Order: sequence, then C-alpha cells, then structure tokens
Amino acid sequence: MSTVDEVGIGMVGTAFMGAAHSQAWRTVGRVFDLPVRPRMVAVCGRDEARTAAAADRLGWSSYETDWRALIARDDVQLVDVCTPGDSHAEIAIAALRAGKHVLCEKPLANTVAEAEAMAAAAREAGTVAMTGFTYRRVPALALMAEMVAAGRIGDVRHVRAAYLQDWLVDPASPLTWRLQAEHAGSGALGDLGAHIVDATRYLTGLEFTAVSALTETFVTERPTGDGGTGAVTVDDTALFLARLSGGAVGTFEATRYATGRKNGLRIELNGTRGTLAFDLERLNELEFHDGTRPQAEAGFTRILVTEPIHPYLSAWWPPGHLLGYEHAFTHQARDLLTAIAAGADDSAARPAHASFDDGLAVQRVLDAVASSAADGTWTTL
Amino acid sequence: MSTVDEVGIGMVGTAFMGAAHSQAWRTVGRVFDLPVRPRMVAVCGRDEARTAAAADRLGWSSYETDWRALIARDDVQLVDVCTPGDSHAEIAIAALRAGKHVLCEKPLANTVAEAEAMAAAAREAGTVAMTGFTYRRVPALALMAEMVAAGRIGDVRHVRAAYLQDWLVDPASPLTWRLQAEHAGSGALGDLGAHIVDATRYLTGLEFTAVSALTETFVTERPTGDGGTGAVTVDDTALFLARLSGGAVGTFEATRYATGRKNGLRIELNGTRGTLAFDLERLNELEFHDGTRPQAEAGFTRILVTEPIHPYLSAWWPPGHLLGYEHAFTHQARDLLTAIAAGADDSAARPAHASFDDGLAVQRVLDAVASSAADGTWTTL
Amino acid sequence: MSTVDEVGIGMVGTAFMGAAHSQAWRTVGRVFDLPVRPRMVAVCGRDEARTAAAADRLGWSSYETDWRALIARDDVQLVDVCTPGDSHAEIAIAALRAGKHVLCEKPLANTVAEAEAMAAAAREAGTVAMTGFTYRRVPALALMAEMVAAGRIGDVRHVRAAYLQDWLVDPASPLTWRLQAEHAGSGALGDLGAHIVDATRYLTGLEFTAVSALTETFVTERPTGDGGTGAVTVDDTALFLARLSGGAVGTFEATRYATGRKNGLRIELNGTRGTLAFDLERLNELEFHDGTRPQAEAGFTRILVTEPIHPYLSAWWPPGHLLGYEHAFTHQARDLLTAIAAGADDSAARPAHASFDDGLAVQRVLDAVASSAADGTWTTL
Amino acid sequence: MSTVDEVGIGMVGTAFMGAAHSQAWRTVGRVFDLPVRPRMVAVCGRDEARTAAAADRLGWSSYETDWRALIARDDVQLVDVCTPGDSHAEIAIAALRAGKHVLCEKPLANTVAEAEAMAAAAREAGTVAMTGFTYRRVPALALMAEMVAAGRIGDVRHVRAAYLQDWLVDPASPLTWRLQAEHAGSGALGDLGAHIVDATRYLTGLEFTAVSALTETFVTERPTGDGGTGAVTVDDTALFLARLSGGAVGTFEATRYATGRKNGLRIELNGTRGTLAFDLERLNELEFHDGTRPQAEAGFTRILVTEPIHPYLSAWWPPGHLLGYEHAFTHQARDLLTAIAAGADDSAARPAHASFDDGLAVQRVLDAVASSAADGTWTTL
Repeated sequence: MSTVDEVGIGMVGTAFMGAAHSQAWRTVGRVFDLPVRPRMVAVCGRDEARTAAAADRLGWSSYETDWRALIARDDVQLVDVCTPGDSHAEIAIAALRAGKHVLCEKPLANTVAEAEAMAAAAREAGTVAMTGFTYRRVPALALMAEMVAAGRIGDVRHVRAAYLQDWLVDPASPLTWRLQAEHAGSGALGDLGAHIVDATRYLTGLEFTAVSALTETFVTERPTGDGGTGAVTVDDTALFLARLSGGAVGTFEATRYATGRKNGLRIELNGTRGTLAFDLERLNELEFHDGTRPQAEAGFTRILVTEPIHPYLSAWWPPGHLLGYEHAFTHQARDLLTAIAAGADDSAARPAHASFDDGLAVQRVLDAVASSAADGTWTTL
Repeated sequence: MSTVDEVGIGMVGTAFMGAAHSQAWRTVGRVFDLPVRPRMVAVCGRDEARTAAAADRLGWSSYETDWRALIARDDVQLVDVCTPGDSHAEIAIAALRAGKHVLCEKPLANTVAEAEAMAAAAREAGTVAMTGFTYRRVPALALMAEMVAAGRIGDVRHVRAAYLQDWLVDPASPLTWRLQAEHAGSGALGDLGAHIVDATRYLTGLEFTAVSALTETFVTERPTGDGGTGAVTVDDTALFLARLSGGAVGTFEATRYATGRKNGLRIELNGTRGTLAFDLERLNELEFHDGTRPQAEAGFTRILVTEPIHPYLSAWWPPGHLLGYEHAFTHQARDLLTAIAAGADDSAARPAHASFDDGLAVQRVLDAVASSAADGTWTTL
Repeated sequence: MSTVDEVGIGMVGTAFMGAAHSQAWRTVGRVFDLPVRPRMVAVCGRDEARTAAAADRLGWSSYETDWRALIARDDVQLVDVCTPGDSHAEIAIAALRAGKHVLCEKPLANTVAEAEAMAAAAREAGTVAMTGFTYRRVPALALMAEMVAAGRIGDVRHVRAAYLQDWLVDPASPLTWRLQAEHAGSGALGDLGAHIVDATRYLTGLEFTAVSALTETFVTERPTGDGGTGAVTVDDTALFLARLSGGAVGTFEATRYATGRKNGLRIELNGTRGTLAFDLERLNELEFHDGTRPQAEAGFTRILVTEPIHPYLSAWWPPGHLLGYEHAFTHQARDLLTAIAAGADDSAARPAHASFDDGLAVQRVLDAVASSAADGTWTTL
Repeated sequence: MSTVDEVGIGMVGTAFMGAAHSQAWRTVGRVFDLPVRPRMVAVCGRDEARTAAAADRLGWSSYETDWRALIARDDVQLVDVCTPGDSHAEIAIAALRAGKHVLCEKPLANTVAEAEAMAAAAREAGTVAMTGFTYRRVPALALMAEMVAAGRIGDVRHVRAAYLQDWLVDPASPLTWRLQAEHAGSGALGDLGAHIVDATRYLTGLEFTAVSALTETFVTERPTGDGGTGAVTVDDTALFLARLSGGAVGTFEATRYATGRKNGLRIELNGTRGTLAFDLERLNELEFHDGTRPQAEAGFTRILVTEPIHPYLSAWWPPGHLLGYEHAFTHQARDLLTAIAAGADDSAARPAHASFDDGLAVQRVLDAVASSAADGTWTTL
C-alpha cells in the first residue's frame, strides 16, 4: 500500500493526551471521508511493560521504548508528540529532520528559544507540522472564527478570556511534574494561558502587541510522594492585560484555583457590530449578539452548534445530539490528514493550522507575560 | 377638580393584593404620563383598627369598614376589589350598578354562574370593568403577545404551560382559607391555573375547545390554628390537556408541590415559524427562536426586555435596569386609567383588557377542567 | 478462543443506529476494563454493496445480507438489532431461540403482542436480552436514578416529561418510513414518547397505572420521492396525563413540531424532599434542588456530571471535560458485556437493564396512550 | 412633629438619579417599619419651570432653585445630592457644615482631593454621611457579603469583576457631559469602575494595594448638538489588574463598548472553600459553589434571593416574586433613615455604610488606576 493511501502514525507518550489522541486516530476514519487512511503503527513510552499494555489497550499495532527508534521506522510518516513540554523540541526537531510530519502537543515548547528552533525546523522540513491547539476544532469555536472572519461582529474592541480550573484549591494536593518549573516550564500560564492566547489569535486574527501581567503562587509547598514536601516552582495563576493589533484591548486570566470551575475556558469578543461568547463547559453552544438586529428582538442567541451546516458536524449525529471533549481531537486528526494528503505546508492550506509558527507566537506572548510579571512593567511584543 | 382630571379610587381588601395594588396606585402617576390622576380616596376592611393602620401605611386618605359605604361615596369612581374570590361577585356587581368602574382581582369568581352575572353587569354598566390578570402587563409577556400577533411565530401548534410553586410541600403547613373550597373555590386550579389559562388566551388569541384533566390532593389533612387538624377540600394540583381553536394542542399544569419552584409560571408557544418562551422567575427575559433565521445562526435569543421600545419601558430606567413583580400592577393601573379617560368599553379600547368577559372565559375553562377531573372524560367548551 | 474471553457481535442494520452502535463497539474495550472483549464479527444489511462498504467504514470484520445467516454463525454470540421496529420481533426471537444474547433497539416492538412474544422468548432463552433505551446510560440520568433511589428527593409527586424535536415543522419535509404506520408503528409516540416513558420508569421505579391522551397529525400529506404526495399515517405529537403507582401524577409530551427544540428530552421529578431536572440538550448537567438545605442557601444546583465519582466517568477524561451523545452507547455496551460475562439474567444483574420486560412495559404504556387518544377516555394499565 | 419622628429631605438634582431616589423616598415608609418617617420637603434644580414640574411629578412638597437655599431650610435635615460629580464636594461639604445628614451619589467626587475634603467634613460634622453605592442594597449582593463574612467561601483568592455596558458602541451617539472630563472627571472608570471597586471592598472586606491599568478611548470625536463634533476627553474603557490585602488578586474591567451587554455588573469571588458569583442583569439570583459539599452533588447553586430570610425581603412579596433595580434605592433609604434615627456614625452602625471614607477609598483606587494607565507602571496604594 502506498503512502498516497495511508499515513503511518507513531505516537510518543501514553498518558492523558496519548489516550485522547488514540481515540481520535481510531475514530477519524470511521466517521469522516478521508483522502488518506491513518494507520496506528506504533506507540512509544519509556517503560516497556506499561507501553506494551498501552499499545494493546489503545489500539496501536506495535510499540517502541525509544522515540529515536520510532522516528527511524519506515512505516511511520507522522510523529505525534504527546510528552511533557520539556521534550517537545528534541523529539519534534528530530522527526522533522527525518522527513516526518509532526503533530506536537501544546504548548509548543517551554522556552521561546526552543520554539524558534522548532519553527525553523518546520519551515526547512517542508512536511506538515501542526501544534496541537485542539480547541480550534471544537465546532463552536470553529464557527466563532468563521463568524468573526465574515464580519459578523465587525472590528474587535474587547477580548475577555479566562481559563478557570480548580484542581489545586486543596493545599494537600500533591507536588507533580506540572508544578515543577524544570519539567513544565510554567504553571497555569503555559498549561491554560497558552489556550486562551492561541484562541484569541485564532478567533480574531489579531496579534498581541503589549502585555502587563502578574503571576502568583498561592500554595508554595506541597506534599511529595515520600512523606515530605517540596517547593512549587511554577505559577498557580497568571493574569494579564493586553493590547492587540487593530486597537483591541483585553483581560486574560489562567488559574487552577477557581473553586467550582472545572474546565472553564471562556472567551468573549465584543466588536463594533456584535458579540460572540463561548464557554468550554458548554462546548456545544455559542452565544451571539447581532448588533444589527431590530432593537426589540435583539439579545444573545444560544446557537446549539450541532447542525449539519456547522463545522465538522455533517459527519456526526442529527441536530441536537451533542459532541464531547474528545471530538475536537478527531477533527484535528481529520484536518491534519487532509493537509498531509494535499502535500500542503501551512501557508497554503488552512487545515494545517495551528502551525509551528503559531505555536511560536503563543510562546512569545507567554514569555512576555512572564517577563512583565517579573519586572512589573508592560512588555511589548 | 372635575372627574375629567382625577379618578377617585376605593380599594376593598388590605392583604397581599391590597399592598401590591396600593404600590401601583402610589407609583403610576409618578412614572407615567396619564390622562387622569389617580386619587387614593379610601381603603376598606372589616377590622377597623387594622384598616386604619393599613390606610396610613399604604397611603390611603381615609378608610371604610363596610364595602357598601365605600361604593356609595361620591369621591370614589373606581372600585378595586382585592378580596378572596367568594365575595368578588357581590361587591363588583354592586359597584357596577352604582355606576363605578371596577378592577377585580382574579379569578373573577368562584363559579361560572357568578362570573356570568358579573360579566352581564359589566356589559350593562357601560363603565370600565377589568379582571386583574396582572401578568398581561409584565413587559416580556406583553411583548410576547405583540410578537405572536405580528406573526413572528406563525400559527401556534403547541402550548406548554405550567405554574409551579412549592409552598405546600411541607405537610405541617397550616390549613388556611386558600385550602378550603367554600372560600377559595378551588386550590391550585383557580389560584395558579387561572393565570396560565388567561395567559394562553391573551398570548395566542385562541380559545380552549376541550380539556381532559386530573386533579389531586396530596395532603388531605392539615393542622388548624387550634391544635387540631382539618380537611383540605381543594386540589393541590391540576393537570390538563387541551385542544384549542385553530388546531393547537397543549399541556397545562398548576401545582403547589413543585419543590424548589417558587413562582415558576412558564409558557412556551411553538408555532409554524418560531417559538417564544417565558418564565416568571426571570420575568425580564423572553426567549425567541426565529425559525426563519439562517440555520447556522439560529437558536434561542434571550431578549432582555428592558429597552425603551419594549412595552411600558420608556417610562422606567435605562436598558438593562430590571423591573420586578410589582411593576406589572403599575402598568395595569396605567392601562386602566387610560381606558377610563377614553370612556372606553373593552370592545373599543385594547387597554381595558382583561375584560370581565375574559374573566368569564377563564372561569369556564376552569369549570371544564374541574368537571373533566371529576368525570374522567374530555369536556368540551 | 473461548466465550469466556470474547463476545462475537453481529449487528443488523447500518443506518443512524448502526453507526452509533459501531462507535460503541469500537470504543468500549479501549476505555473500560471489561471482563470480556467484544469482537466486531459481522454486520448485516440487505444491499450487498452498501453493507460491504458499511462493514469497511464502521469496522466490522465481515458482512452478511441475510440476518438468518448472521444468527447462524458460530462466531456470533450477541445479536445487535438496529433495524426499524417492524422487524424487531422476528429477528430478536430467532436470535434468542438460537441461544444468542440480544440487544434490541427501542421501541422493543410495534405492538404489545410482538413485545409479549419477545419478552417470553427472552425469559425462555436464559441469555441476556436488553432493550436499547440508551439514555439510561447518559451519566447525568444514571446519577439521577441513583439519587432518587437513595431518597434524595423523597417520594415522587410530579413527573414533568417532554421530548421535543422540530424536524417536521416544514410541511415540505418528505414522507419517509418513519411517517408510515406500517413500518414505524407510530410517530412521535413510539419514537420519542417511548424514551420518556422508559426514563420515568427507570428513574422513579414507579409504574404507569392510567393515562389520558391526545394525538395529533398537523401535516397530513407530505411529498413522496416521485413528485406526488402521500398520507402521513402516524401521529406528529402525542400528549398525555398519567397516574403512577404511589400516587404520583405526570404530564408527558412527545412532538416533532417544537420549533427550535432539536433534541429536548426533558424530565423533572418533584419529590417530597427535593427536585431533580434534566435536559438532553445539556446532557452533562443535572439540576438538583435539595429541599433539606438551609432556606437562605437553597436553590437549584447545576451538577456538572463529569467527576470520577459519577457513573461511568472514571474511565474518561478529567473533570469538566464533557461527554457527548454517543458515549451512552459505549456505556450501554460496557454494561451489556458485563452482564454477559456474569452469566446474568436481568433479575439478578442490574447492568442488564432495560430488560425485554422493561421494553414490554413501555410498549403497554404506548398502547394505552394510543387507545386513550382513540377513545377519548382514561385507559388503565 | 419632632425630628425624632420625621426626617425632612431635600434633594438636589432631578435627572435619572433624582427619579430613582424619589421613588425610594415615596416607597420606603410604605413597605418598611421605620424608626422615623421621611418627609419629601423640597427638590432643587437650576431651571425653575422644570424643577417645579419635577417636584409635582416626583412627589416633593416644594422646590428650590438654589441649593444653598435648600440647605438653609430648617425643615430639611437630610440633603440628598444627585448632581454630576463636579458639584458633589461643594454641596455636600456645605450641607455637612450646616449640620445636615448627607446622602451623596457615587462617585463621591471627581478627584481624591475633593473626596478627602468631603470625608474630613463628614468626620467633623458628626451627622450621617453616606455615599450612594446603591448596589450594596441589592439583596443578592447583601447576601453575598453576609456569606463571605460568614466564611462560606473561605479566604478570597480571585476577584473577577466587570461592569459591561454598550451604549457608546455607535460612533454617532452624541457628546454629552458624561464624555467630557471637566464635568465627569472620567468615563467608564468613574461611572462603572467605581461600582466594581466598591463592590469588591464591600463584599470581601479587603483593600486594594496595587493596580496596573490601561484605559482606551475608541471613538475620540462625537457629534455635538450643533451639527459639529467635539473631542471625547474621558476613557471609553478601563481595564486593570489588582493585588489586594490578604494575597488576593483580581481582574477588573469597565466599558461602555461591550455590545449586547446592557448593565452587566458581574463579580465572582473564588475562595479557598467556595465561590460566589453575581450578575446585575439577573439581580435576583446569586450563584454559590460550596466546596465542602460531597463531590457527587457539588455544583453551582442558583439561589433565588426572594425568601423572607434574605436581606430586605421580609418587607416585600412572597418567595419567587422578583424585585427590580429601583428596590435597592428603597433599601438604601431604609438603612440611611435607620442610621439617622440611631444617631449613628459609620463606625458604630453598619447600616450607614458606604461612608464618605468608603467613597474616598474608592476614589483613591480610581486615581491609582488613572495614574497607572498614564504611566504604564504598577501604582501602589
């Protein structure tokens, strides 16, 4: 079977993201008409027993315990990087240099320098390189982007974005790699803030030009596995103001201490002609205020984004039958395979976004936020 | 000062409805431009001390302890009947025969026979006679009626109406006059069901043609004041199906046992072109689905009914500043005074609705519901 | 390979339900720890080319074009019936007699007689027979059932259930098999009404004892494929009142004409101690009013049913990451496989519900509704 | 009648705030049991004809055209200042020096210097001086303050506050005094931002310690009445980050350009034990997440703040009967009269808040915001 027909996939990482990506690779060809078939060739993890079990459980045909071996395989054309951020650069750059397509989880890297190297490698490679800002494929957010691009809210004046979780409220919650700067790079900023920065760029097409930020660590010591405690070396929350190209302004907030908010990625855009608002805890819905409607009937319309005319929906169930979190990964897989089939690089084919350049742009904003929080000044981009 | 300029008001009853009506009479001339001024001449109650205190508290210039004396006063042109249902007919008919305008709280009467006599008296009197279906003056419901009349939802196919309260959930709640058939006529049916029947007629312009009903009394004995218990002789809940003129069908429910629902008057109309939905617990809002909108942007629009263009709103606060329950009484007062100034009977002047004939029509539906519940058959109207 | 380790599945039907069931069979073993593995042995359809394509697309290892051949296969232990209702009885009974486990889509049959024969066959067979009332496996509804069973709302007094869709609002929508009595048995009643009847029995544990109903066909002629029109011979809507065991009463409504409501299965239960309410258009949420809370803090709590402690959720994503419509099918598959592994019949193992007896019970209620609508009288059960 | 029994009121200003205050003075004694009676002695405006008409319309016994004459009247004990901010200091200080009680609309002044002089005058006068942060008397916000004070959400970590309006979205909207710095002091900052700063202090009891801000004017020229245009010299929006005493952090936003948001004062407090959230567009509701509830039943509870046990509610209607915007003014009037009767200064009697010192504290925060926006640095308080 030729590579025209199939794309062999090798995935690195078997945790939460690995499970979500696997579900997407198993499902995408069963639901969408694809130009190429995905083949789940191999999964890679460090622990052999666990990786073997994961391969069996998640539906991969084989496994590797060395990511370099995975990349070297001829039957792998696409490397899917689902590891923590500190290994993204090394794996992704090696894969690109080996001529592979790459899907890399967000944030693209832990530092701007790494992200720059990755973006450079992607430009040189000429294969498809995608940053896994998966929420771009939530149908309601994809519809929101379409509506902004179509001028339905006019020029954006205000962005109001927050990503609210609460899993660190309890001081007894343990110290994991996500709370250690050497592995995670940052805390809420990189994990959650990256999403709202990317969503803003994606939805509005605008660039961040300056930020003023504060970060805070509310609980500075947490229990380790061994009965002791260790220092939390990342931010618990990051708040920032921003100016964007075109004169828009915005407030941004990422936190893991918003008691009761489980996965509250919220973004509202106020424009000269209307407003659009989204909340990931109601991911099948989009709120739209059309400022051009007659005043007596104007208001916020709750669009249930489950119609065949909505992005990705014609492949799924009848109207009113909801999709869930994992569907966005399936949609991402579909767009990525479509881009690979088209032989497209990002500049030519919209489906391949977010590009590594997009990932780099987000990293630069996160870096400016960290810098501003450290200095207490506005940081320009 | 001539009657052209002022309308002297005499109110019978000083309890909950008396307080709400008084607030309206005090306020209406301060907020609306009126063709005539209301004058709060006298309030009437049986207990002199309590009535005197109520007059002072509620802002009435004088008081009476005999409603016949109130009606006889030359300085009273409008009699406002806020007593329990068993005295409505006698007072209202006497007032009409004395040439007074009458506002009578709902339900118009406890029986169809009484309501017929009242409607006949109103037709003979030629003065303005209004049944106090106050919710017609909630701006969102008035807007809903306007939108239905303007064809915004096309022909109505479904009515889905419920009035849900929960103040009888506790079996230890005492036996009051509202739970005794000789005073209240019926229970949830007359108290709450009357509202959804009237709202349906008002909003759709359709008539009930047949009903199938059940009523139930969940708690049949309740404590009396004297340490004993007494029998509950009214319905705790009334449920019915209905066919309406024009082919529409509906479900209706009135209950005082919907735990957690405090004042949940909800009505939804599904038409050939759209849907409108209302909930009294969010009385400043109206939900509208416009079936003619492009599919990609269709949905339920939450209209915040606080714009100057909305019914009654130009007299109040800026957009987004909410009104409450009592404002509907002020709006009712305004419409009633306007009708009186116009010398209008109901057939000529829209503001005078609900007429006594409307009150009678509701009473006939309630009677058909009670009859159907007793017989276990469909009752036609 | 022994039946201890694997269950070979043969599915009849390749349309909407076939796709949903296939997604479940592909996914269940990847997400849940199962006592047996499902094997997607064969799919069956009448048209060979289309069935072959469906097998390839949906992930089935082989296909059949005669359901009798499918049942006869030794490698099939479970027959999954996803055909229209008029063929359920014949296929399911044949499968049961052949010693197979059976999952049969709802409604169990088009008539009570068929359902009785099916339930009898299931009792005789001793294999696992499940009716596909899939919504029982929506986590929020499963939680609701648990909470009712645990007494969180006390004794149920009111059931308020509706299943609202709008795909027939347009009179130009074509005449399909779903609108012809000979194939579909009934219209909204069997398609949508069956769900709210089953949900009521499942959630409350109560039985319907009497119903009063009306049915209506709003659009009696619809275009056929050949340029002409044909008669709609099923109900467009069915409304009924019900009395249930234990003294509860309820309103029920099924319609395909609720403009703007796409998949609005709503059910609210008012009990002596609290209220629970659900809407399928927000299927990850459950509303709970706890009547025992202090009055100052009481209200409706929106439970986001995505915690690991909630039914089925520990197998999925972190809190706040939503599930969709199709997940209920995966949960159903998990419970069915668990029951098969246990060698359980329905009386012993809760996971095997809804049994064919449950399916029959629903059919009897639907029959009583149709009978009441025809006669205009209350029908007792 | 002695001053023990009555408080004579003189109000300066007859526009929007004058109307709202008048409604409160007319109503408060009819609804609440008061220790003293309010007497609406005189209203004051510059234009005699319009002031005379306003007196008649709004229910004042007489009028003045010079506020000094109003203050000088022996029958006026309380001066109610409803003028634009640039005249607050002069009038309020004169009234205090004349031994009057003062209610002054917010913001207390246009500058910190003025506010300091006013607060000093209030301390010297010994009469009751209240800043009109009326939203403190919205029952849901009063309940929220009580719940925070009672520890229901533990220690506050996040404040998320916005006041969103949209009445300046249209560039053709005219240039009024509110858009001119010499009269209004500032734009959205003083008008809307003052409310969320005060609400934060009131609800949490915390002080602002540092802010980083940006302000923006989106439309810099607007039409004047005479056919020309003039410069907008105030901010259209103000955004700021803040650190508060006790380690809390927050985002704050005030804007008149949030298309579709009419009066969206929203404030959410995330604490170590729970979360409370409020939106003025649903002012009868309060959202509460109790982090100590069992995980399976946890969620946001929508408290309908209409129970007799809730602040101010026992004087009004039965549960579920909503209040509106203007009721908060009536509640403010009740608390002010209660404080006057008690001979209380703010330190002794909670009802007299917000004090002039509270008004000054808000002014200092607004000043720090403006300073930070001008300098591009964090400003400490």
